[in-house]
Formats: sequence, structure tokens, C-alpha cells
Amino acid sequence: MRGTMKKGNSAPTMKDVAREAGVALGTVSKVVNGLPVGDSYRIRVENAIEKLNYQVNSYAQGLKSNRTYTVALLIPNTQDPFFASLAYHINRSLSKRKYRMLLCCTDYDSSQEQEYVKMAQQNKVDGIIGLTYNPNLVVVEDTPFVAIDRSMGPKIPCVASDNFAGGQLAAEKLADLGCKKVAFLRIGSSLNNEPNKRKAGFENGCLSRGLSYKMKILNDGDSYEEFETFLSSYIQDGKLAFDGIFCVTDSLAYCVIEMLRKLGQRVPEDVQVIGFDGIRHFGSMDYVCSTIVQPVVDLAELCVDLLLQENMLVKPPLICLPVSYGNGGTTLEPDKKTD
Amino acid sequence: MRGTMKKGNSAPTMKDVAREAGVALGTVSKVVNGLPVGDSYRIRVENAIEKLNYQVNSYAQGLKSNRTYTVALLIPNTQDPFFASLAYHINRSLSKRKYRMLLCCTDYDSSQEQEYVKMAQQNKVDGIIGLTYNPNLVVVEDTPFVAIDRSMGPKIPCVASDNFAGGQLAAEKLADLGCKKVAFLRIGSSLNNEPNKRKAGFENGCLSRGLSYKMKILNDGDSYEEFETFLSSYIQDGKLAFDGIFCVTDSLAYCVIEMLRKLGQRVPEDVQVIGFDGIRHFGSMDYVCSTIVQPVVDLAELCVDLLLQENMLVKPPLICLPVSYGNGGTTLEPDKKTD
Repeated sequence: MRGTMKKGNSAPTMKDVAREAGVALGTVSKVVNGLPVGDSYRIRVENAIEKLNYQVNSYAQGLKSNRTYTVALLIPNTQDPFFASLAYHINRSLSKRKYRMLLCCTDYDSSQEQEYVKMAQQNKVDGIIGLTYNPNLVVVEDTPFVAIDRSMGPKIPCVASDNFAGGQLAAEKLADLGCKKVAFLRIGSSLNNEPNKRKAGFENGCLSRGLSYKMKILNDGDSYEEFETFLSSYIQDGKLAFDGIFCVTDSLAYCVIEMLRKLGQRVPEDVQVIGFDGIRHFGSMDYVCSTIVQPVVDLAELCVDLLLQENMLVKPPLICLPVSYGNGGTTLEPDKKTD
Repeated sequence: MRGTMKKGNSAPTMKDVAREAGVALGTVSKVVNGLPVGDSYRIRVENAIEKLNYQVNSYAQGLKSNRTYTVALLIPNTQDPFFASLAYHINRSLSKRKYRMLLCCTDYDSSQEQEYVKMAQQNKVDGIIGLTYNPNLVVVEDTPFVAIDRSMGPKIPCVASDNFAGGQLAAEKLADLGCKKVAFLRIGSSLNNEPNKRKAGFENGCLSRGLSYKMKILNDGDSYEEFETFLSSYIQDGKLAFDGIFCVTDSLAYCVIEMLRKLGQRVPEDVQVIGFDGIRHFGSMDYVCSTIVQPVVDLAELCVDLLLQENMLVKPPLICLPVSYGNGGTTLEPDKKTD
């Protein structure tokens, strides 16, 4: 039940490998650096490496090949469940391709984000995947960069969910579920980013389905209590004027559902609530609420694909991946919960 | 709102810095590698570095100084909220000390864990922090290693919450809250690790408080339905024989609370439930349930401290940090929720 130890006091060198394999030092170097040598030589060197448990010095290798097989992920934190899931799947996707990942939590801090970009370059990473909020982030042209959720210029591909379609889907779903008068609640960064298209998509969906709607938009730092004040102002004789609410994230939906219960409204019987993101309890259980699900696995794969793809002549400026609807029990579907 | 670009086509070299500063190349090298030089020289070199925007090649630096300022974190994933929080706080703690962190998600896979240890050594990291499950994990003596939650031998410090005290606290809390007959439910790895002490602590607490108790222990891979069968067998005339339940994790408590509701039991009126970990909704909101809270920030700081501390003559084999109780509304406290 305990880890075993291996003495590391006399680490074998490349010379030891050459001696063991009975080949020239240059041959070992070629094998280690992935350059072509005859099969019989390669096998002898590989056997000697295994026998001696020779450890390749990746730093020396990185200097020679000008490749580090390392990618930096810039993300606010791993505590928010959406970021946690994204970090996990990007990690898996890189690992499958034998790449390492430097996790760089930025805490939404612009100067932190810039520091990490600088650090990532100094460490000569092969690329950066960034979900950043610094509107003036300076990136360097010769380090490949893939942005998540925010367009950073024509030369940097941006990967996002189809947020507009997601907003529209939320409106259509509420209409399908029998809602007549709905509300849209939003709080978040006022940056011009992809998630902000959820609002326009929702409006579009309401208009096309003839749903009457109200909106309440708050900015980061505003108090959530303003939502409670807003909702209270639409209650008359104990009855809320809305029968459906779309919240811009599952996190907001979670808070709003609490507020509604405090205000004496039953969810979903009196008012149905849909969030956005597809967050599951403990990362793997039921959805926290009915939700527009972001395709996190596909987002992660695409970021890594775009970043590592060489000789990409035309970098796509924006790729939006399709979202889907997930029933989390805060809407009135025939079956209570689905996957 | 868009990122600006900086051309990187003629990156300045160390020679350019020496020329700009009017000093010898060796002086620049010393400053870059943190070796002592006269203050006036150091300032001239630092100014030249800033003016030319010279990027230190960390790989070359790593080769010379035999330091990489990089630590690998081995952890099953970042989707489990406890792991997510641990990864975030270890990242912050390393970042404060100007260290980078390689995130290595292992998916509980023994060979993945071993692969990552090997990779971490090849990349010459300064150390490894590992929350691993491979009972035969081979680590190398000259790479510092700090283990979380599992003792890996006398030379590897293990950091954990005081799990025994946590189990005991859960029993005492249930007794204080008026419970007379309680149950302990556990599912998890059968490895000999620190969290397994929760059971012994709970038993101890029950005995010292005269609480009657039953236990149901499942192993990883067993079906949660067995808990439902177990609980059902203790219901007579619609009434559960237990008035308190301690679950080994918040994640299990969450599932058990669902089961209890399905079985017609009200939480906390009929039966009070306490979990373990201190998981909050969306990482930052209320506790998911009443819980024994692990001191995640302190655990993270301590792991990093132990790992980076040099000349540590006596490595402590096991350090247990104190836990606390958090009210998450699944117990019958006077105030519904506290922080």
C-alpha cells in the first residue's frame, strides 16, 4: 500500500545508453530527438533506454527541437463548474496528443492575464488557449493562440458555443412548454464577447414565437438583490406576471430559483426556469436546472485541434459549436429528468 | 475590445541586451540567472531588458540553473468540486511564489499516474504534488514529492485534513442536534488512505456520546442502489429508524438526500444529514449540505510550502489540518444557513 522508491543518485547519461546499445552517441541523440535512423539501431537504442531507465532531458530536447510539447491554458479559475469542466477536457485532449498543460488561473485580473502570456512565451510554450477578459491583452504573433468566447482579432481563432442559437432555443423551449410572458435576466461582463449574444438570440426567439418579454440586465459588481426587486415588482396578489424565465447562466438560475421560492413562487409549477451552460451536480450527476448545454468536450477538442494544427493557411476567425437543451426539473416536461 | 499584436520576427538576444546596457555578456547572464552583480550593473541590464522587451529563454535558464520553477499536480480530474478547489488553490499558491503548474489529470488510472510521474521527471519539474490512487506508484528520490490524502512511505510527506476528527465531529454534531440513532454510509476506494479514517472517527464519536449506530460500507463500483435498499430496510410504517445520517462525502450526501425524499422522509425534519468536504454550490455559494469542511486553502498552501522548502532535514510523514462544521440546511440548527 506504499509507494516504492528508486534511487536516483547515478542517473544514466546518453553516453551510457550509447555504450549499452553499442552505437555512436549521435545515433542515440537522433533516436531521442525523433530523427530517422535504421530500425535495428532504433530498437537497440530503445532497449538500452528501457534497460538503463534513461530519462530524456526534455529541456535539452526542447532547446534542440524548438518544441516544448507544452500548452498554457489561461482561465479565471477551476472552481466555477464550467471552467472546471473546460480545463479538464482540454487537459485530456492535450494529454491524448502527448502534450503537457500549464494551468494558469487568472482570477479575471487583466494584469495577471498579461503576466501569464509573458510567462508562457518565456517558457516557450507551443501555444496558448485563453479564456480571458483583458480587452487590451497583447499576444505575440509567433506563439499560436486560440481564444475561447471572445474574438481577439482576425488572426486569432475564437472558439465558442453558438450562443445566439442557445438564446433562441431557450425562448422556443419556453414557448413550447406553454409560456406566454417571459423574462430574461442577465449579469456579467460588459465586454463584447460571445456569451453576450444569448440576449439577442433570446429576443429573436421571443419575437418569432410571439412571446411577450421583459429584460433585466445587470453588470458585474451589481447586487443580485436588484433581480429580486425586479421580480417583486411583477408580483400582484401573490402572482408573478411571468410564467417563464431565462437566466444567462445556470449559476444565476440557481440564485433566481431560490429568490422565486422566497417570493412564494413554485418552480416549475408557477414559473419555469431555464439557465445556460449545462452544469451538473458534482460535475457528473443531474443538471442543476433546465439548461442550454454547452458542448464542452467538443469545445475542448476544437481548441486543441486549432492550436496544434500546423500550416493552417486560413485561420477561421470564429467557430460556433451547436448547443442542446437539457431538462433539469425546473421546467414542466412530461418526464422529470433526462440526460 | 480586440487584442493587439506585437511582431516577434527579430527577437532580441542576450547579446543585444549586453550591447544596449554597455556591459559584458557574462553580466547579463548573471542578472538573468539571479546571480549577484553590482547594483548599477543590474539596473542597467534590467533597463535594457525592458527597453528591448527581451524574453528570457526559460528552457536555457532551466538547463543552467537546474531549476524549472515548475511543479506538476497529479489529480484525478477538475470536475469533482473538491479536486477543482484544490487545483485552484494550489495553482494560486504556486503562482504567488512565481512557480508554474503542470496540471496532470489522471482519471484514477494507475498507469496514467505512473506515466505522469515519468513525464514530470523528464520535464525536470522541481517537484510533484500528487493525489493518487496507484498503490504501487514508483516515485524517484531526487524529485520532491508531496502526497495528498495517502501516505506513501516515510520519506514522502503526506498532507490531509484531520479525517478522524472530522468523523468524530460529525457524530458529536448529530448528538448535539438531538439525534439518538444514526447511520454511517460510505462508498469509495478500499485503499488504505486518510479519508478512510472518517469511519473510525465517527464510531468513536458515537460511542463517546452514547449514540446507537449502523454502518453501510460499499466499495468503488458498487451500485448506489444498495444504500436505498439498506435505508428501506430500516423503514417501518413509513418511519425511518434513523434520525441522523453521516455520509462520507457531500457528493454521497447529495444522492442520499434524494433517496430519502423518494422514500418519503423529510430532510432535516425527519432525518438530519451531514456530509464531508465543504462543497459549495457553484464553488462559491452556500454549502450543498451540512458538512465537515476541509480547509482547502490551508491544505494547498501547506503542500506547496513543504514541496518548495529546501534543506528540510526532517520531513514530517503526515500532517493533518483541522476541519470545521458548516451548516448547509440539512440539519436542524436555529439559523438556517451560516458561513
